[in-house]
Amino acid sequence: MLVYIAGSGAMGCRFGYQISKTNHQVILLDNWEDHIKAIQENGLKITGDVEETVKLPIMKPTEATTEADLIILFTKAMQLPQMLQDIKGIIGKETKVLCLLNGLGHADVIRQYIPEQKILMGVTIWTAGLKGPGHAHLEGEGGLHLQSMDPSNKDAGYQVAEMLTEAKLAATYDENVLPNIWRKACVNGTMNSTCALLDCTIGQVFASEYGLALVKEIIHEFVRVGIAEGVDLNEEEIVKYVMEISKKASHHYPSMHQDLVQNHRLTEIDYLNGAVAKKAEKFGFETPYCQMITQMIHAKESILGIK
Amino acid sequence: MLVYIAGSGAMGCRFGYQISKTNHQVILLDNWEDHIKAIQENGLKITGDVEETVKLPIMKPTEATTEADLIILFTKAMQLPQMLQDIKGIIGKETKVLCLLNGLGHADVIRQYIPEQKILMGVTIWTAGLKGPGHAHLEGEGGLHLQSMDPSNKDAGYQVAEMLTEAKLAATYDENVLPNIWRKACVNGTMNSTCALLDCTIGQVFASEYGLALVKEIIHEFVRVGIAEGVDLNEEEIVKYVMEISKKASHHYPSMHQDLVQNHRLTEIDYLNGAVAKKAEKFGFETPYCQMITQMIHAKESILGIK
Repeated sequence: MLVYIAGSGAMGCRFGYQISKTNHQVILLDNWEDHIKAIQENGLKITGDVEETVKLPIMKPTEATTEADLIILFTKAMQLPQMLQDIKGIIGKETKVLCLLNGLGHADVIRQYIPEQKILMGVTIWTAGLKGPGHAHLEGEGGLHLQSMDPSNKDAGYQVAEMLTEAKLAATYDENVLPNIWRKACVNGTMNSTCALLDCTIGQVFASEYGLALVKEIIHEFVRVGIAEGVDLNEEEIVKYVMEISKKASHHYPSMHQDLVQNHRLTEIDYLNGAVAKKAEKFGFETPYCQMITQMIHAKESILGIK
Repeated sequence: MLVYIAGSGAMGCRFGYQISKTNHQVILLDNWEDHIKAIQENGLKITGDVEETVKLPIMKPTEATTEADLIILFTKAMQLPQMLQDIKGIIGKETKVLCLLNGLGHADVIRQYIPEQKILMGVTIWTAGLKGPGHAHLEGEGGLHLQSMDPSNKDAGYQVAEMLTEAKLAATYDENVLPNIWRKACVNGTMNSTCALLDCTIGQVFASEYGLALVKEIIHEFVRVGIAEGVDLNEEEIVKYVMEISKKASHHYPSMHQDLVQNHRLTEIDYLNGAVAKKAEKFGFETPYCQMITQMIHAKESILGIK
């Protein structure tokens, strides 16, 4: 397969690196000039569980010309529409597009650019960090679930899962991936927004009885909206899952903290709590915790002059 | 009159200082050792609109022995019960107690220590700052409204208003002071909590469309609860009032920002948004914005290790 990684940040580099270890061909796509230059000149530096530097092709999305077998979408949520626009030239008759972005609502965006039978929706619990241009830091284990949006196109999904498993990415074809996507969104929707606003680690939020109360209200709203959308979610099970993740990640600052507090970048709040609040509105009920936390994050972005 | 200021922080110093300029006698009460020592040794230093240093008696509440004509309560909300305990010895048959604390729910606390016919409830828009032990900074104009809790005791209220007006504190006896107390609580309940959480000035919250949306939801909840309590409140008028204050105070960090962010002290959130959330519960409805912002402030207190 010829695989493109559309959005080669930390996670894109992990996937690109691991796929490059198989017999499949991989090309990184990104728009960050320094990152492209570093990888073109010195290769992609990997530290963490393994330490090595690999030669990998990287270019801007608009520069790619060879038709893809698979494109893995790994952009920030707000960069997704532009990326979908930019990769039009490499989408052919047999190309599949796998979305592994965090958050909710991406399928609706992708469908505006790409026919449903090409789309695979997925969710991954792999993690990765970017230490600087051309340098990814990879630690720990993970896995991923994916599903073809068009049920008649299951075979393509199984093939992609097989290829990713060859790359030691532990992919599973999932007949019902949506609950997994929502479960992960609950993790991000509780930890990201609270840690960014309270300027603290995941463990600090979860150690406070008030922090826990916030987390539970947010999960309750996510689950209510998910169920209204027809997704099979069990609130109790998700609370347990989020609590477990919080223990493993207790010393971490989630990505929204990195974006808002550390780097003064726009956050993905509209694709987490904001998406839930918007969906709830459509169903005619309110999710005040999600709505308020979205307003607070946006207020903070505006106070910091982030545009 | 012999007037005690029970809680001689910034506002207590303003009132003590201005009353000391009349023929009435004033004694400051406080528990902050450095503050007491500074005023006993060097007098109370006033800067701002006037610059002078005045000799004023100050002592701990438990050291006061002469029966009071009037005690003005100016503690932080959480120090109120201890103060009421400590001043028992100076409350005589004719003593009146005027509460000028910010926030809601104080009357219920005071009634546990002092008979209703002695209590005057009030609200002031004077401001003041404390630059350090024994040093108050006074700027701007203000006024205050007060009312006897026991309607048969109006005369005492009028006398106190007259004395405070002699002290140029522009006091008005108000036949219905509760709407004024709630209006001020709306100012504090919107500006304090948002600026403390977003670590910014009042003007920065109000310049953001998301900040404004938060403010309006909070006011809506305060007004709904106030009306349920039988207080005559007009939401539109209060929004206008809060917006006006925000313009005048746009460069200020409100007191809760000073407490939480600057000095890592416990906040008064339970007597503002927290009080509203608790009252709403009693009435059988929810005020999620007030509830959530109270949880977030408490979570931040706990993250900062404030007890």
